[in-house]
Amino acid sequence: MSSDRLQRYLECIAACNACVVSCQHCASLCLQEPDVKMMTRCIALDFDCAEMCSVSVALMAGGSELADAMCGLCARACRMCAEECGKHSHDHCQQCAEACRVCAEACERVAV
Amino acid sequence: MSSDRLQRYLECIAACNACVVSCQHCASLCLQEPDVKMMTRCIALDFDCAEMCSVSVALMAGGSELADAMCGLCARACRMCAEECGKHSHDHCQQCAEACRVCAEACERVAV
Amino acid sequence: MSSDRLQRYLECIAACNACVVSCQHCASLCLQEPDVKMMTRCIALDFDCAEMCSVSVALMAGGSELADAMCGLCARACRMCAEECGKHSHDHCQQCAEACRVCAEACERVAV
Amino acid sequence: MSSDRLQRYLECIAACNACVVSCQHCASLCLQEPDVKMMTRCIALDFDCAEMCSVSVALMAGGSELADAMCGLCARACRMCAEECGKHSHDHCQQCAEACRVCAEACERVAV
Repeated sequence: MSSDRLQRYLECIAACNACVVSCQHCASLCLQEPDVKMMTRCIALDFDCAEMCSVSVALMAGGSELADAMCGLCARACRMCAEECGKHSHDHCQQCAEACRVCAEACERVAV
Repeated sequence: MSSDRLQRYLECIAACNACVVSCQHCASLCLQEPDVKMMTRCIALDFDCAEMCSVSVALMAGGSELADAMCGLCARACRMCAEECGKHSHDHCQQCAEACRVCAEACERVAV
Repeated sequence: MSSDRLQRYLECIAACNACVVSCQHCASLCLQEPDVKMMTRCIALDFDCAEMCSVSVALMAGGSELADAMCGLCARACRMCAEECGKHSHDHCQQCAEACRVCAEACERVAV
Repeated sequence: MSSDRLQRYLECIAACNACVVSCQHCASLCLQEPDVKMMTRCIALDFDCAEMCSVSVALMAGGSELADAMCGLCARACRMCAEECGKHSHDHCQQCAEACRVCAEACERVAV
């Protein structure tokens, strides 16, 4: 792809990268929480969301024909993870929920 | 997820795994072809399709809530790659096109 | 790479694919166990191991120059996961431990 | 893992993320070059290196026990890709070579 097309994706790539870190970090801290039983859906969605964001970055940076569609699906993963993480008051969950919301919005702008 | 739910995915997981190998192998042989200039879209779609199949397997095996939606997108990647590979007479392209078609059908059954 | 070189990897690719499914499945069932607090290292290593196996497959099938080194690291992940899963009596843990051992051996044969 | 441990990885995570984008972008532009036949090893190593960096980020952010070892292997991928890209005068290759060198150094600091 041209560098112009990459330009269009840079904000979304940055949001996805931040979301990967927040989700992986949140999952690893959730696993250490005393109330881990409450956090299991959070952990599962953290991993899904991190995976989706990671693939979205690869496809956007590589100018894949499927990048926009992948971002559409990634936005769904981010919305689900944001909603679940948002239910928990742990700092890592609240920060992850925020990173997921920012990423969902960036992905939705790309996916339209 | 329950083992029953995994059962539902086993055929699709096998098709995705076979497709990853065919796509990665096709890409690596395309890069060695004398007419590599003709094969560039094939190479790009091979990588996209392998990536999608790989993620689909992870989500299906992990019982992700997003597994079915991911398989829907994976089916699209497989259809595109099958169509492009099918244009080339090299053995690795023809074999890859067939693996992609089988995988697309399996993913479509899961995604509905 | 040549099809001959792919041939050399086929057993290891199959073992890695089986290990991805076992690890992802084990992680998802661990998250549902009443004693999930006991399973947190198992869950973490399951994800690591699945990730390593998945990348190893991609590199082997693509004939990467780094495939053998990646399999060496994957073998380490499999050994760690096998040891941890082996401590738990749940069926999914015992099955995962076995899949990890088989995969570690296959990866070690490739990595030498 | 603790947030302190994440802190230790932040520079390396940023370098890996930048390297993923440079490598995927370089590969996609290499595939469009008139002299694509000269670029085939560059393309193959770009994909390997992007994959390694992506997994390294996931493991570092998740506080994996294997993060440091993965970074050691990632450094090797980055060195190989930097050397190959550095042979080509295209802007995307030169920029990718530089991103790979920076990432190799960051990974080596983590891996020791």
